[in-house]
Amino acid sequence: MNVFVIGIGLIGGSFAKDIKRIVPGAVIHGIDASETHLEEALALHLIDAKSDYDDLGKADMVIVSIPVDSLVRELPKILDAVSDDCVVIDGGSTKNLICKQLEDHPKRRNYLACHPIAGTEFSGPAAAIEGLYEGKTNIICEVEKTAFKLQERALELFQKMGMRIRYMNPEAHDKHIAYVSHLSHISSFMLGKTVIEKEKNERDIFDMAGSGFESTVRLAKSSPAMWTPIFEQNKDNVVETLEEYIQNLEDFKQMLVKNDFEGIYSEMNNTNKIKAILNGIPLNKK
Amino acid sequence: MNVFVIGIGLIGGSFAKDIKRIVPGAVIHGIDASETHLEEALALHLIDAKSDYDDLGKADMVIVSIPVDSLVRELPKILDAVSDDCVVIDGGSTKNLICKQLEDHPKRRNYLACHPIAGTEFSGPAAAIEGLYEGKTNIICEVEKTAFKLQERALELFQKMGMRIRYMNPEAHDKHIAYVSHLSHISSFMLGKTVIEKEKNERDIFDMAGSGFESTVRLAKSSPAMWTPIFEQNKDNVVETLEEYIQNLEDFKQMLVKNDFEGIYSEMNNTNKIKAILNGIPLNKK
Repeated sequence: MNVFVIGIGLIGGSFAKDIKRIVPGAVIHGIDASETHLEEALALHLIDAKSDYDDLGKADMVIVSIPVDSLVRELPKILDAVSDDCVVIDGGSTKNLICKQLEDHPKRRNYLACHPIAGTEFSGPAAAIEGLYEGKTNIICEVEKTAFKLQERALELFQKMGMRIRYMNPEAHDKHIAYVSHLSHISSFMLGKTVIEKEKNERDIFDMAGSGFESTVRLAKSSPAMWTPIFEQNKDNVVETLEEYIQNLEDFKQMLVKNDFEGIYSEMNNTNKIKAILNGIPLNKK
Repeated sequence: MNVFVIGIGLIGGSFAKDIKRIVPGAVIHGIDASETHLEEALALHLIDAKSDYDDLGKADMVIVSIPVDSLVRELPKILDAVSDDCVVIDGGSTKNLICKQLEDHPKRRNYLACHPIAGTEFSGPAAAIEGLYEGKTNIICEVEKTAFKLQERALELFQKMGMRIRYMNPEAHDKHIAYVSHLSHISSFMLGKTVIEKEKNERDIFDMAGSGFESTVRLAKSSPAMWTPIFEQNKDNVVETLEEYIQNLEDFKQMLVKNDFEGIYSEMNNTNKIKAILNGIPLNKK
């Protein structure tokens, strides 16, 4: 099987590692805007050969893991270049604009819209992890628009990789992912910003930081190049989640100001049920 | 050495485990408002015997790890009960009110005001971890008010436990810890609340959550009984950090609304320097 991975970083590279392990005889061709990344991916044996769009005609499967603004621009060209018997899978954190963009593409049946909910705050080929996707959820959108035998090829791989599959429409995907992923990133980035601003004058402050702070600001290490277009494409949903979050913080502050500590206890106690909810989330083993 | 641990949960229990390992012949006496916790601590061999305040006269060292409102109430009584040769150490996450409360206590010289910056989101005796404090920072306030030989006894233990010691005044401690610890907890609790509120109508939402969400809401599992009095005692500083955090979130939202995606990229890019800062934080090994 000829597999092309376009964008050979954390997401694409982790796919490449699993495919090499799972699919006997698979040849992984790497395409990336960065020559450095390609060389690194070769050196790390994530890919067997460097390639480009001219070669896509021989692909049986293409995995496209690039920022979501590039996805909107590149996926039509990629579909143009592949054969009728090739399945093109993406890993974008937004789905609505991408699906709309491809709606009338003559090769729409070759595309499977995916969002594997997995990753770390790191990026690039060296961040790729074998087994990253095991036990993780893969959201598939508009599955009915993909040719049946191509769905099957992709799903067989996902199953062997140990992914849980969920089907959703692109609008619902973008709305819900704003809450459980996009908002977390903003809350983390702004927490980091608030504390760094303070630190300008108070050099000692980070000596006092513990693992709780580290955990809540972990996502503030994430790539701006990846996240800016996600926020742009999912702007309306993200603004809505942010407004609700800011309101909850404002209410909490007001309870403090008014010395309503029973209210504060009760807010935290109610939110403790997140424990039970989190027990259902498959986490990174790393 | 007779060591009394008052409040035998995560913090006190982890002290007990390390002391048993480090101090040959140490006998650990446990005191706790909860009989269940005491029985659990005995069964887990965290303590050698159950005890009460009447026995405190024979203590060489007392470690008090109870919520900060209880600290303000109990520390004067504990100091009344100990001998002149006993050092009383607390682990409270606030220091200002506690130090003020003990300012004129006749046994002030027996007290060492500490805040070991270590913990997890769990609580109770079963949450105790051996080596929890290794490599962690212990903030000591008003060290000059503690008798020299009692400072020495405590510092020798902290050193053997592998802690980094930092000296600070109580006002500075409470101000800075609001940024690197208290604010993280509120940001996490309110993130959990925002998403749980949404989930009322959308049952599927948590199926989409990944490890990024888990990391940012981890602290929302923390104990309300521990955190409510912390926020109460450190109210002024916490309100200030919250105001700055809310303002930063509001500014980010405005950039989204105005389609200022260059600004958004630049905010995230600037905050990425948290990577370098976090590299300096000693983290839980667990």
